[in-house]
Amino acid sequence: MAIIKELTSRSENYAQWYNDLVLKANLAENSAVRGCMVIKPYGYAIWEKIQRQLDDMFKETGHVNAYFPLFIPKSFLSKEADHVEGFAKECAVVTHYRLKNDPDGKGVTVDPEARLEEELIVRPTSETIIWNTYRGWIQSYRDLPVLVNQWANVVRWEMRTRLFLRTAEFLWQEGHTAHATREEAIEETRKMLDVYAEFAEQYMAVPVLKGVKTASERFAGALDTFCIEALMQDGKSLQAGTSHFLGQNFARAFDVQFLDKEGRRDYVWSTSWGVSTRLMGALIMAHSDDNGLVLPPKLAPYQVVIVPIYKNDEQFAAINEQILKVIKDLKNLNISVKYDESKNKKPGWKFVEYELKGVPVRLAMGGRDLENHTIEAARRDTLTKETVDLDNIAPYVKHLLDDIQRNIYQKAMDFRTAQTFTVETYDEFKKRIEDGGFILAHWDGMPETEKQIKEETKATIRCIPFDGDKTPGKCMITGKQSAQRVVFARAY
Amino acid sequence: MAIIKELTSRSENYAQWYNDLVLKANLAENSAVRGCMVIKPYGYAIWEKIQRQLDDMFKETGHVNAYFPLFIPKSFLSKEADHVEGFAKECAVVTHYRLKNDPDGKGVTVDPEARLEEELIVRPTSETIIWNTYRGWIQSYRDLPVLVNQWANVVRWEMRTRLFLRTAEFLWQEGHTAHATREEAIEETRKMLDVYAEFAEQYMAVPVLKGVKTASERFAGALDTFCIEALMQDGKSLQAGTSHFLGQNFARAFDVQFLDKEGRRDYVWSTSWGVSTRLMGALIMAHSDDNGLVLPPKLAPYQVVIVPIYKNDEQFAAINEQILKVIKDLKNLNISVKYDESKNKKPGWKFVEYELKGVPVRLAMGGRDLENHTIEAARRDTLTKETVDLDNIAPYVKHLLDDIQRNIYQKAMDFRTAQTFTVETYDEFKKRIEDGGFILAHWDGMPETEKQIKEETKATIRCIPFDGDKTPGKCMITGKQSAQRVVFARAY
Repeated sequence: MAIIKELTSRSENYAQWYNDLVLKANLAENSAVRGCMVIKPYGYAIWEKIQRQLDDMFKETGHVNAYFPLFIPKSFLSKEADHVEGFAKECAVVTHYRLKNDPDGKGVTVDPEARLEEELIVRPTSETIIWNTYRGWIQSYRDLPVLVNQWANVVRWEMRTRLFLRTAEFLWQEGHTAHATREEAIEETRKMLDVYAEFAEQYMAVPVLKGVKTASERFAGALDTFCIEALMQDGKSLQAGTSHFLGQNFARAFDVQFLDKEGRRDYVWSTSWGVSTRLMGALIMAHSDDNGLVLPPKLAPYQVVIVPIYKNDEQFAAINEQILKVIKDLKNLNISVKYDESKNKKPGWKFVEYELKGVPVRLAMGGRDLENHTIEAARRDTLTKETVDLDNIAPYVKHLLDDIQRNIYQKAMDFRTAQTFTVETYDEFKKRIEDGGFILAHWDGMPETEKQIKEETKATIRCIPFDGDKTPGKCMITGKQSAQRVVFARAY
Repeated sequence: MAIIKELTSRSENYAQWYNDLVLKANLAENSAVRGCMVIKPYGYAIWEKIQRQLDDMFKETGHVNAYFPLFIPKSFLSKEADHVEGFAKECAVVTHYRLKNDPDGKGVTVDPEARLEEELIVRPTSETIIWNTYRGWIQSYRDLPVLVNQWANVVRWEMRTRLFLRTAEFLWQEGHTAHATREEAIEETRKMLDVYAEFAEQYMAVPVLKGVKTASERFAGALDTFCIEALMQDGKSLQAGTSHFLGQNFARAFDVQFLDKEGRRDYVWSTSWGVSTRLMGALIMAHSDDNGLVLPPKLAPYQVVIVPIYKNDEQFAAINEQILKVIKDLKNLNISVKYDESKNKKPGWKFVEYELKGVPVRLAMGGRDLENHTIEAARRDTLTKETVDLDNIAPYVKHLLDDIQRNIYQKAMDFRTAQTFTVETYDEFKKRIEDGGFILAHWDGMPETEKQIKEETKATIRCIPFDGDKTPGKCMITGKQSAQRVVFARAY
């Protein structure tokens, strides 16, 4: 029975392992629409936990939610010169607003008379429509700052898609803030990057590098893009969140000016920042193993699953009575529990299933446990088991969940430490990059050098890190001056 | 200062009053995209409360959330014969997936080479894409029921739009469930209607009539549509939620079959149910007055606003000290509070502002209150004030909020009772309908009679009510047999 759930192993084919896992753990699947996924209930339950926690953190930092239109007039995209280059290419274009019955009598066809005067683009990101709106909201410094976030779906037409990691439609949040000064906008950009990093590390249990993107990797329309980068088990980097300092670019493009305290008129300063369902990909890849998902307790749809093991109805009744007490105790400690007492599936099948689904703790109680007044507790991260006194199980589980959260973070951190390399020469770099990992090397700051490295090695500069060694040196390719080492990796 | 916020009165022009209120209370505004609105932070905060509460109620009744694609292949819409008639007409059609730089060198233009083989429709509702997906999820009775809900945006191209009430894009939830038997599907349809009714009455404080739609008002593709109808202050009815029994229509259209316990193959039974940002319109119109919004405490973004009134910094310091204690006490009782201590606005301006925004309770503290150890409490629904001992203010407010929630429901209920009329003849009906309200009358069950009434009076049958008088009678037009009175009204 376990066989139908078997995954391709990571060592055999990492990409296939990932895809198998997403499908078999019932997280998501491809839909009938090219590049668009269906997020299934178990996957969506994780996304809801992510959303709820991030939303709380946004609100704690003074932000409010709003909602802006799905559609963007085509002309808006052209208003900011860099933005149009980055976003106005692969996108879904609405040209008509009506269908009519097919003259052949079968199905429906687009009504050629219902052509829009100006085409509408399904938002790939919302800077343009939002800044067009902010023009009406902001007149004076008293109207600032505007600290707005939106939870929404966006569409970017992608040729090669992968569930969660790269899909034509995805779900995300996009913060769009407006400020009276450059300094305040930069501070906001950094603050939100810190929120993302804290979320990734404390909730997803994924360690991240914080840094700034090079010019060529910047968001289209930004003066600076800050990012968090996470290392996956295959040694590739995943950009998990970005926060952009947009300067006055969008305010200029949409003519959003304000009167400052001294009565001078100036353009508004802005930021935008976002994370998406791509985080699901990072969460899945960072911790999971060949048996399935490994979820951090803080984001697991249920933290504990309980399976009864019995020979007959009488024994089930006795075990059930004990388990119901355990559930009550766990719930009193705010621990979420699934009790799987379904009779048409064997305990062994259930064990495999909940391992696949990454439930952090599994409790099982059989006849001997009943006699001994014990219960078996298995942890998903290490796959180890322990027999625990029934009277002590709730605090034991509470402690275990904390320990699992800490342990999977530490494991990911240890992996990253082991897979981070400092190299001095380009030869060394080219050898090293084949095995993946983060590579710290000196770079002369020139886009041409960056481009050469990318073309020759498929590695990109993931970020110029904020923390760590700031010693200057010489570029590994040109020998020119380098202000500090930057982080290279192959990336998702 | 109050003048800039002044609303058109309801008696002068009800439609204008509504529009003024939505704009001036910062709930929503029109966007640059025809028919699409921007939901502003204060409006969105109310919608978030609505969402959170409904989502809790859906989960309590066993439902889980998922997410399905924004786009629907054009051919899907034609698969269910009635559905295509109802939905495949006024909708946004995506025909291309790429823009390119305009040959004129200015802006971007649609790339004619990037035409989709099959056009994609922006979902007007998701039955088709969801049932196409369910084919892969359901094989056996063991896979049933499927109890899934989706929070999403949908688009229906509307020629005449009104903020919240009718917009091209709107936000909603759509439940889509699959069942092994007709009975279970009908039970689900009724259960979700009851959830909607409970939400409307207990949270929105809006009394609703529950009933079934006539064939001509049914959802396209349903065998039965149940609805809740609410009476607005202008005497028009607003359909606030619908729950559809879809029979096996979509299962047939998308070939979703299952093996039952006896090993027989049959099509799956289904339901769908939804409420949308239209509820915001109902909430606004049901309770508000010529001074602005009146919000039920259970859905108000903040339930209490506190305004200090002082002559100098010293007095402010003393008042502020007292108010901070009050805030602490209120928060301990889970009451949400906004403290407006902004110095650039006068208390009088604030009073008008928070009345406009419908904050249920306003507390104000001035020099005399400070001396007397009191605080002034004003309730938004009745606009009455009382001076309360400071030591007693938190429980006083708690009780007041409960009372306001009850009172605005009762007020709306009394209004509906007074505006519900039983008529016997069509002459009486035609006179009565001019003044609005619910009219209970006998109807012969024929679509032609219904159509005649609609054409001659603009009134429609809102529902055949579940509760109330079930006495048979004679149709007011044809004199033919009528099983029970039905509810007529003009409607939004």
